[in-house]
Amino acid sequence: MGLHFSHDTLPQRVHFGTGRAAEYLADEIARFGASRVMVIAGRRDADTAADLSAQLPVALHYSDIVQHVPAESAERARAAARENAVDLLVCLGGGSAVGLAKAIALDTALPIIAIPTTYAGSEATNVWGLTENGRKSTGVDAVVLPATVIYDAELSRNLPVGLSVASGLNAMAHCIDSLWGPRADPINGALAAEGIRALATGLPAIVEEPAGLEGREQALYGAYLSAVAFASAGSGMHHKICHVLGGTWNLPHAQTHATVLPYVLAFNAPQAPVAEARIASALGTDTAIGGLNALRKRLDAPRALKDYGFTTQDIPEAVSLILPAIPTNNPREVTAANLTELLTAAHEGSTPGP
Amino acid sequence: MGLHFSHDTLPQRVHFGTGRAAEYLADEIARFGASRVMVIAGRRDADTAADLSAQLPVALHYSDIVQHVPAESAERARAAARENAVDLLVCLGGGSAVGLAKAIALDTALPIIAIPTTYAGSEATNVWGLTENGRKSTGVDAVVLPATVIYDAELSRNLPVGLSVASGLNAMAHCIDSLWGPRADPINGALAAEGIRALATGLPAIVEEPAGLEGREQALYGAYLSAVAFASAGSGMHHKICHVLGGTWNLPHAQTHATVLPYVLAFNAPQAPVAEARIASALGTDTAIGGLNALRKRLDAPRALKDYGFTTQDIPEAVSLILPAIPTNNPREVTAANLTELLTAAHEGSTPGP
Repeated sequence: MGLHFSHDTLPQRVHFGTGRAAEYLADEIARFGASRVMVIAGRRDADTAADLSAQLPVALHYSDIVQHVPAESAERARAAARENAVDLLVCLGGGSAVGLAKAIALDTALPIIAIPTTYAGSEATNVWGLTENGRKSTGVDAVVLPATVIYDAELSRNLPVGLSVASGLNAMAHCIDSLWGPRADPINGALAAEGIRALATGLPAIVEEPAGLEGREQALYGAYLSAVAFASAGSGMHHKICHVLGGTWNLPHAQTHATVLPYVLAFNAPQAPVAEARIASALGTDTAIGGLNALRKRLDAPRALKDYGFTTQDIPEAVSLILPAIPTNNPREVTAANLTELLTAAHEGSTPGP
Repeated sequence: MGLHFSHDTLPQRVHFGTGRAAEYLADEIARFGASRVMVIAGRRDADTAADLSAQLPVALHYSDIVQHVPAESAERARAAARENAVDLLVCLGGGSAVGLAKAIALDTALPIIAIPTTYAGSEATNVWGLTENGRKSTGVDAVVLPATVIYDAELSRNLPVGLSVASGLNAMAHCIDSLWGPRADPINGALAAEGIRALATGLPAIVEEPAGLEGREQALYGAYLSAVAFASAGSGMHHKICHVLGGTWNLPHAQTHATVLPYVLAFNAPQAPVAEARIASALGTDTAIGGLNALRKRLDAPRALKDYGFTTQDIPEAVSLILPAIPTNNPREVTAANLTELLTAAHEGSTPGP
């Protein structure tokens, strides 16, 4: 029959309101009855963190955040949490701040309140990551899912436009890849479609008016939905490609996703009519790829892997690493030949499409 | 600013697959490590319940189910669960079977696996209800939310067409009312829109081919989403009206919802443009009310309250009872005059619309 899936919905409270982060945070800390809070925020966000928590029972402000959560960095943070008898974690920032809070929770089971300022989406997943000896290991554990997420567009207003676009298209990639991920289901599809709609509204508004709040709100909202859908559906073809490109050639995360996405969409769409129709409808365009190309043009999005140091000589190795990782349920069969074509086009930045 | 809401997502696992209920149920009971299961199913579903659980560690088959969960009935079931040292509840059936399982869980905190055979949706909410001295009290408790829901369209194939239509339109009412309920938010809206789409596909298919499975699948899927959205958004104007009509004049539940819904939609839609557009888009029609009217015609849906014993003499009392219950955030102001008009039209069954 047509409909057949298993879907886990993760428990989480989301507060969404511009200018309301301090109020929401105070309410949540009171609800948890916390009295020794550890506030995790990078140096760039230190003032904001201090403002938000001025009236709260903070035991420790912590800013020793390193990208990709090295194991030593996680151990230092855990020790600090223990020494200060912390009973709740608040993290403010992007994926690295949330990632560090998750690493502490994995060891201590402390509850997390996340206040995201980018569109990375880690706050809505139960996935943790740790890097040791240059290798990143990831896992899934209910204990690392933030209990509460607070979105306040004012706190993301300083994210530069270029980074906002790349981060927002990374979120768009979560939405699109979740439509054919290994655990894709129609619930994820509905959430992803709503996320696409919100991102396609929000990102151009940010480009037009970087200090405006309505575009930021839509982008945060879309990023949240993208992460919910993606956490449930799992990594599809797009993320398998980007994982190899990032891990082996150290290409920049969000920019790689933003560049590769339209090529994967153009590759899969002809054999994924339901996903294609959902994306097109969410973008308000005739075709999914036409809509995504038009959006990327408006956003002046990253467009060629060669701009990030990836070369044509790298393609054969990339193909051999990616091929075995492609999910078996990918709508279109992936071969060395058609994957080479895809990577060649993404390297060059030629217009993605049929 | 535009976007401002708080949203609680409830944890739940959903398994969806035609002909797979026995397999899913065995997996889930093993996952919980349960060894003394109480299987709750009405007499009509007793054979199905026995088949599904033939190989499972059942301590007790229980069929003493009474509508609206009278307190004495709940007490008997709790005593039976205790006497049999039950460690997990399985309920098969409609709202009454799920309601009894929730009443036991409220007292014992036993986990519930729900296998719904109607479109009532109670399986996806944390709301319980008990009737004592003719008064129904309801409450919200995390402990009554079924941990797992198993949907198998084969098990709902025997639901008669008329009841399927009424129950399905009751689910449609959950979707539509959640668009302007007191805690309405865009996440609920996205789930409700997907539910409307599924119900609008499934219900006509059931009418055309009552023994077919694809319509049943879509209707079950839509009913699930309707309940998720509704549990989060809370009762809007539609449910406040139906609650009074059902509670005071004892009108039949699903039929009352099916009848009243288009009048509430026609009433609110002109002042709820986002909801109107969502509904129209999900129905694939130019306007929400046009789409709902067309669907109800195809379904030969219940159409006048007078057919269920409600009289024009009852309208003034109904108005006085409903008026104070209307949520303050209803898109259109409700007055004694326009509510009287609405109920007069619903009584008569005149075509709802501008």
